[in-house]
Amino acid sequence: MNIPRIVITSGEPAGIGPDIVATIAQYNWPVELIVIADPELLKARAKNLQLPLELLPFNSDELAKPTMAGQIKIIPCYLRAPCIAGQLTTVNAGYVQQMLSLATSLALQKTSAALVTAPVHKGIMNDAGIVFSGHTDFFAQAAGHNYATLMLFTTPFTQQVLRVALTTVHIPLAQVATTITKTRLQHSVTLLHSSLQRYFNIHQAKIAVCGLNPHAGESGYLGQEELEIIIPSLDELRLTGLQLIGPLAADTIFTPKILSKVDAILAMYHDQALPVIKTISFGQAVNVSLGLPFIRTSVDHGTALDIAGSKNADASSLQHAITLAHSMILANQRHRGTN
Amino acid sequence: MNIPRIVITSGEPAGIGPDIVATIAQYNWPVELIVIADPELLKARAKNLQLPLELLPFNSDELAKPTMAGQIKIIPCYLRAPCIAGQLTTVNAGYVQQMLSLATSLALQKTSAALVTAPVHKGIMNDAGIVFSGHTDFFAQAAGHNYATLMLFTTPFTQQVLRVALTTVHIPLAQVATTITKTRLQHSVTLLHSSLQRYFNIHQAKIAVCGLNPHAGESGYLGQEELEIIIPSLDELRLTGLQLIGPLAADTIFTPKILSKVDAILAMYHDQALPVIKTISFGQAVNVSLGLPFIRTSVDHGTALDIAGSKNADASSLQHAITLAHSMILANQRHRGTN
Repeated sequence: MNIPRIVITSGEPAGIGPDIVATIAQYNWPVELIVIADPELLKARAKNLQLPLELLPFNSDELAKPTMAGQIKIIPCYLRAPCIAGQLTTVNAGYVQQMLSLATSLALQKTSAALVTAPVHKGIMNDAGIVFSGHTDFFAQAAGHNYATLMLFTTPFTQQVLRVALTTVHIPLAQVATTITKTRLQHSVTLLHSSLQRYFNIHQAKIAVCGLNPHAGESGYLGQEELEIIIPSLDELRLTGLQLIGPLAADTIFTPKILSKVDAILAMYHDQALPVIKTISFGQAVNVSLGLPFIRTSVDHGTALDIAGSKNADASSLQHAITLAHSMILANQRHRGTN
Repeated sequence: MNIPRIVITSGEPAGIGPDIVATIAQYNWPVELIVIADPELLKARAKNLQLPLELLPFNSDELAKPTMAGQIKIIPCYLRAPCIAGQLTTVNAGYVQQMLSLATSLALQKTSAALVTAPVHKGIMNDAGIVFSGHTDFFAQAAGHNYATLMLFTTPFTQQVLRVALTTVHIPLAQVATTITKTRLQHSVTLLHSSLQRYFNIHQAKIAVCGLNPHAGESGYLGQEELEIIIPSLDELRLTGLQLIGPLAADTIFTPKILSKVDAILAMYHDQALPVIKTISFGQAVNVSLGLPFIRTSVDHGTALDIAGSKNADASSLQHAITLAHSMILANQRHRGTN
């Protein structure tokens, strides 16, 4: 069987992205890791962290080989201006943009079997005049389609595996209620269901769905959206054979009683789910984009400018993001083999 | 020093309220516990649970004495219809209403130093034609004032004490953004601050405040309420000497990095905070009403009709609610002594 290639974008150069890439390169991997970064930046950060790091040129004509500890394949991309750890500059926003474009091309042409991203800084991208609302939208647009994507978080290393997808993500709270339409909700549920099948090898997924309102609306006393939109949407999907539970109150959906019964949870909005995920996962969570034409996982944290270039960055989330991407590649191969 | 009296309302008779009251009566307490319940119901449930329980008449003219294991003082209140565990009936809604009215009187006339509530069932109260949106509103109205109350949750037994208050509680999500005004927010912060002083003996409380939008609005990219309402409100309060942090992103506010620095968190709405609290507290959380003219704590769970009358109800939350009420009584005595 071929060794899969996984491309890693090293992200914002002033953040901890280069640090955590240098850190995960200290392990042996059963896949070929290829980082997109400025070689001098990566070497300098490895030196800061007192980590040995040999950068190997990438050649797509060669057979992929497992990554050995202390080495990593690199596709060079060059900083526009010198980078000081912790100091953002708009001049290097183009560097980040180029890195992400290159990664998209490699994923679309199937040079890489999956794409794993280190954090970028939305603010500095936008300050530089690049309209940038996040990795996922960037990839969807760069892939040439307006893919309706779904953000899924997984916490692989808590007692109970937690997989939570978000029906809406980065929008103001005041817009959440009106954004949750039957179309969007049903798309989210079916995309989650098919992705669990294809990438997580879960064939009859049980999905618990959160209500929108406190106590899932309490029979209409605390809001009508459950009665008018969520319940009818789920009932229709149940007729197609999907196993759906809910809508349930968000304050008790993440407890062992429910988690032990389901494969994934669909939350309605960002702060209904992320506080729980980040609180119980302690930086071990992985962010997965479902609905793109390629596998993409990401760390669950930001650029952490204050500790960039120090030894204090925790590479666990990147490590888990790579491991999860690999397991998604394998599940997808099995899935294609059996369909 | 006088032994404080704490009144416990046993709540919905078909739920686990009577069970958990019979359970906590199996311990010695440094306070005098007085339960309001139907004596026959309480005896029957204790028998179901195979717990010894002696009910002692309450006489307010006698000196209060610590509650001894296996006994509890009772103020009788009589069921309107026979009660079968797990089966709600509108006929007994009047029983619950009477129990809560009686408890309010005892608290207002200072017969009891604090009020602790077992769960009631909002649905059956409303079905019986009693407009009932929750204990806190009931007590505020019964106390004859439209007290602006604040709901505070505490998790006394996790590694880090978590105290989280809610700026808005039981309203539809679509109304949250417009409900958070400068007046409400500033009232919530100052009430939280003064309550921490008075009831928790925390004199220079540090309070972290959540944003309303994802990532606390991300400098306006994800909503304007932080810039227009929350930040100016907090800045004004800082001028009065309050130590406030935020607005911070809700998804990372509940992590040790922040929790280790603050005494309490003020969240903007129900599902921004309750999922985290209930997930990490495992049924040990206590709900406190701030802003009432008396001390009131409550369990953090519902009536659990499916396990009423069985041995499966967990009395931890009621136990913690009583312990917390006692510590609030003591802090308040100290506070009055020093002011």
